[in-house]
Amino acid sequence: MVEDHLFQHLYGEIGRIPLVDPHSHINPHRPAARSLDEILGYHYYTELAHSAGLDKKALAAEVEPRERVRAILAYMDRFDNTAQYSWFMEIARTFLGFVGGELTAADCDWLCDSAERLMAQPSWEEQVLRRAHVEQVFLTNDFDDPLEGFNTRRYVPCLRTDDLVFHLDKPEVRQRLARATGIEVGDAATMRQAITKLFEHFTRHGAKACAISLPPTFQPGPGLESHLTGMLQLPERNSPAEWSAAVFWMLAEHCRDFNLPFDLMIGVNRRVYRDGVYQGQDLFDQRTSLIQYAELFNAFPSVTFPISVLSSGQNQELVSYSWIFPNVVTHGHWWYSNIPAYIAADLRARLEAVPKIKQIGYYSDAYKLEFILPKYNMYRRLLAQVLADDFVRPGVLSEDQALALARLLLRDNARRIFNM
Amino acid sequence: MVEDHLFQHLYGEIGRIPLVDPHSHINPHRPAARSLDEILGYHYYTELAHSAGLDKKALAAEVEPRERVRAILAYMDRFDNTAQYSWFMEIARTFLGFVGGELTAADCDWLCDSAERLMAQPSWEEQVLRRAHVEQVFLTNDFDDPLEGFNTRRYVPCLRTDDLVFHLDKPEVRQRLARATGIEVGDAATMRQAITKLFEHFTRHGAKACAISLPPTFQPGPGLESHLTGMLQLPERNSPAEWSAAVFWMLAEHCRDFNLPFDLMIGVNRRVYRDGVYQGQDLFDQRTSLIQYAELFNAFPSVTFPISVLSSGQNQELVSYSWIFPNVVTHGHWWYSNIPAYIAADLRARLEAVPKIKQIGYYSDAYKLEFILPKYNMYRRLLAQVLADDFVRPGVLSEDQALALARLLLRDNARRIFNM
Amino acid sequence: MVEDHLFQHLYGEIGRIPLVDPHSHINPHRPAARSLDEILGYHYYTELAHSAGLDKKALAAEVEPRERVRAILAYMDRFDNTAQYSWFMEIARTFLGFVGGELTAADCDWLCDSAERLMAQPSWEEQVLRRAHVEQVFLTNDFDDPLEGFNTRRYVPCLRTDDLVFHLDKPEVRQRLARATGIEVGDAATMRQAITKLFEHFTRHGAKACAISLPPTFQPGPGLESHLTGMLQLPERNSPAEWSAAVFWMLAEHCRDFNLPFDLMIGVNRRVYRDGVYQGQDLFDQRTSLIQYAELFNAFPSVTFPISVLSSGQNQELVSYSWIFPNVVTHGHWWYSNIPAYIAADLRARLEAVPKIKQIGYYSDAYKLEFILPKYNMYRRLLAQVLADDFVRPGVLSEDQALALARLLLRDNARRIFNM
Repeated sequence: MVEDHLFQHLYGEIGRIPLVDPHSHINPHRPAARSLDEILGYHYYTELAHSAGLDKKALAAEVEPRERVRAILAYMDRFDNTAQYSWFMEIARTFLGFVGGELTAADCDWLCDSAERLMAQPSWEEQVLRRAHVEQVFLTNDFDDPLEGFNTRRYVPCLRTDDLVFHLDKPEVRQRLARATGIEVGDAATMRQAITKLFEHFTRHGAKACAISLPPTFQPGPGLESHLTGMLQLPERNSPAEWSAAVFWMLAEHCRDFNLPFDLMIGVNRRVYRDGVYQGQDLFDQRTSLIQYAELFNAFPSVTFPISVLSSGQNQELVSYSWIFPNVVTHGHWWYSNIPAYIAADLRARLEAVPKIKQIGYYSDAYKLEFILPKYNMYRRLLAQVLADDFVRPGVLSEDQALALARLLLRDNARRIFNM
Repeated sequence: MVEDHLFQHLYGEIGRIPLVDPHSHINPHRPAARSLDEILGYHYYTELAHSAGLDKKALAAEVEPRERVRAILAYMDRFDNTAQYSWFMEIARTFLGFVGGELTAADCDWLCDSAERLMAQPSWEEQVLRRAHVEQVFLTNDFDDPLEGFNTRRYVPCLRTDDLVFHLDKPEVRQRLARATGIEVGDAATMRQAITKLFEHFTRHGAKACAISLPPTFQPGPGLESHLTGMLQLPERNSPAEWSAAVFWMLAEHCRDFNLPFDLMIGVNRRVYRDGVYQGQDLFDQRTSLIQYAELFNAFPSVTFPISVLSSGQNQELVSYSWIFPNVVTHGHWWYSNIPAYIAADLRARLEAVPKIKQIGYYSDAYKLEFILPKYNMYRRLLAQVLADDFVRPGVLSEDQALALARLLLRDNARRIFNM
Repeated sequence: MVEDHLFQHLYGEIGRIPLVDPHSHINPHRPAARSLDEILGYHYYTELAHSAGLDKKALAAEVEPRERVRAILAYMDRFDNTAQYSWFMEIARTFLGFVGGELTAADCDWLCDSAERLMAQPSWEEQVLRRAHVEQVFLTNDFDDPLEGFNTRRYVPCLRTDDLVFHLDKPEVRQRLARATGIEVGDAATMRQAITKLFEHFTRHGAKACAISLPPTFQPGPGLESHLTGMLQLPERNSPAEWSAAVFWMLAEHCRDFNLPFDLMIGVNRRVYRDGVYQGQDLFDQRTSLIQYAELFNAFPSVTFPISVLSSGQNQELVSYSWIFPNVVTHGHWWYSNIPAYIAADLRARLEAVPKIKQIGYYSDAYKLEFILPKYNMYRRLLAQVLADDFVRPGVLSEDQALALARLLLRDNARRIFNM
């Protein structure tokens, strides 16, 4: 096999670009893992092990953590073909000193012991960040997060709004909102006041984005506030499609007024597999279209919408919408799309048709810092390969231009778009 | 051009894996062809020739078989770019001793003579099976098939249920059902009894799967038996979506009770091109989703559903649903998806994201044994290439691991999933 | 990097095939550009510059043309990754003598001066045609185009019918129709007479096709003429889906009677981004299906329908529909699909599954002749690569056979299908 020196060179240089990771679920109070259980508790492993036959009971909260790890490791040879297994192997090798060729239940104790010893080091968080070459990580904060006690320049707050848009009919959500804002929400007007309070709180604490995940059928539109008032006053006459759209529209107005981008993660149905493991129950319906958001994009020209999608069919729409709408930008490779086959295809199309300043290349979606490295390395390899094959070798870009493009995707576009 | 030795090695070794072909339309009483007309009568050739301009009349039953062959051969230079042409060329070369570069009407008599001479050999069936390296072939049996007079270990029965689910409103179907089961079906309860009889008959004769093809709009669900009773008792108040779903649900219950996987082939509309050749009239609508089957997958956790789809958009859903639902497995590359461009893309995604024990790699869908070899060779080449490029060369799998994975896809998964 | 001699050879030979460009927006009275403003006024550049941040005002009609050019050039380093930028770079190098590595606002005056000097040559049109190696170019003619004053053998008229099908409810359209045909349309019968007049006029002037672009939801069907009469007589009771379908059906009947292919360009929603630049407002909805046209394809077996689609999901349907329906042929790579990533994927599938005589490879969609060269070169590179990798190297086709196939796609199929 001929070595691909160009690819190797690009991949090496891309690895030197310091990262801004614009979407994660990191807990800034405990950003790194403290045990292997916190690594393999990531839903990708519990759901793949369960899908491959592992009984959910082996993963229950009351099971001793090391036995949960052992159970997953015992099933790994059923899914060691997957990209997700490769992430874990890279973590084991890079962070835990594993040197073998396969991971099995026999490695459980050694791995757990190594993890506990290494992760207990006071410098662990810094070590992990340095090896991943990541400078800033965006969070996913509940609307009632106090946002205190952590470095908000390293861990950038982001207002996650699913609860407000889809669960405001639940009394506990309204109680949390009352506690967070001091406002008892009883109609559209008080809801608007409460949202203003939240945006004030978040932007005061350095928040750089508002974010939400949306089901495939969602269609935002203006002028639905009476439905929201109706739901709040007569909950039994509940029409979620309308009042959800009303809350969503208020959020977009606040993004405009507070100069925050609005991250839309489009296409997920929740609880499709009802007996699935925790966070392993959601799936998509390919029959969704960005046309559902045309009214939104038209109504808020000053709001930037970084868009994540779940399928390559939807990515083709995203490429075209980002090419046409100034306020639509491509955002990472989300969830079920985040495997090499789909990243490569989606990335290639974006690079060929979307202005390069409008592409946020990737985010980790990680719950623990250790996952940033293997996920970004997967992306960096694919990016290097696409740049080598489709841009540098055909003479479209020089190597330096290709690396400058990579820097936009991995760092500079996120910093500019999120006003950092 | 640099030789790809890794690909060559993998392809060679993959060719040594004995096959289980888990879906075909082979007639076990006449599994191999007896003439070239039985080869070129395969709808892929009649429909491509007709699509390329051949009048349907040239293919009619009353035309002398050799003239049908000549007519198709005369049109082949209009579609000799297609994968389907390549299958025929491989049959002509491997089985019939053809050595030329192109097939034309001028080859008709020589090919027909060769075919008749060779296929008349008593050992022909064995020769064809041996060259394709196939050990077991699944059939597609009508519900009233007596399942007698053939070796059911080699030719594995499979209960095909389209007639029951979609044509039970036709008197002739109910008459066939009455003859097969001794039960006059008049309501949901008697229908259930009749289905039980069929499952008893099929499992007693070694059936290993129940199967059905489904239109893009189909949505199964529980609790619709009254619609079935209604249709049977008041046929004029016919609501096919509901009573079809009721029969389907009963079949799923029987798959659960008789421990049979339920093969779902999702997405085909029948008789779209009404004047098309026999079996060359069906097409799909890409707007379908596996979400339509979420209720089914939830309701029958103990039933394995091997799923076939018709588009790469739907394949992306299938990859995700198989990754999440323990009882959903990927099944082959069906019909309009069964060309190299789509197989390669769909296969790559499955290999990266679906547990390897949950993938049934391929099936021939053949009507005559001779097609197993070229179709599987096409798949084996693509599999070898994906394994070489995406798994072995990047260091994800060793060559031995890659071949072990191929063996799961071509043989072991089918044997385990179908309880053989 | 190993040189790919086979690709180079095929690309070189493919470049020698004289082109028939079967769809453009060329104005036959001013086919070539006269200034750089006419090149960069192409919506691909205005929309990408606007999407990347350029204020629409900088592109307004009252702005001095050279300043419009300067504004776009100043934004090009924001989208110099795109295929569209590559087309312009190829124009600058091939036609204007540009030799630099990047195009910026600093190049504006030199480029404009060069363009004006070169384009003023009396032989410019001939030079451009010769360098692109194009012999015949199809036009897009309004229904009331007099079709006079140009060489209709070089610039082939094509009756564009969007106005008739979608805007007949507008008085100005009916007035234009009355002026063009002498018929005041007041019901379905007079509309039919008017259409007959148009077809007579167009075919007398050498028209070789009827064409239309269609929204994703459009569904033609027979028997809706009363809706058309209703709309014409009681405009306030307007039901566009029905009367549009009625006009469309009449057009299909005339294509049959006048022996003209009917080009369908399926999937575009108009004015999605309402504040977009001129011609930069339209986008698609991936949720469309060719099943919506099944009735049409069945009803008009003698009419050939060259079909253009906007997504790869829809292309997979198109591959299958062209493989089954004798009267459906694949037509180019349209608009948002016209970037290398999607062309390559769509082309590969067509070449593997659609009879080779039923594929019209490419069209330029150009407004000025200068764009034919870079757009076709992009396609020729992709075609050469797919032929090299998937056909010649695996031994499916010889080099000569591959080149013969390319000739069908670039020239001979268009000539045969459009009866030239």
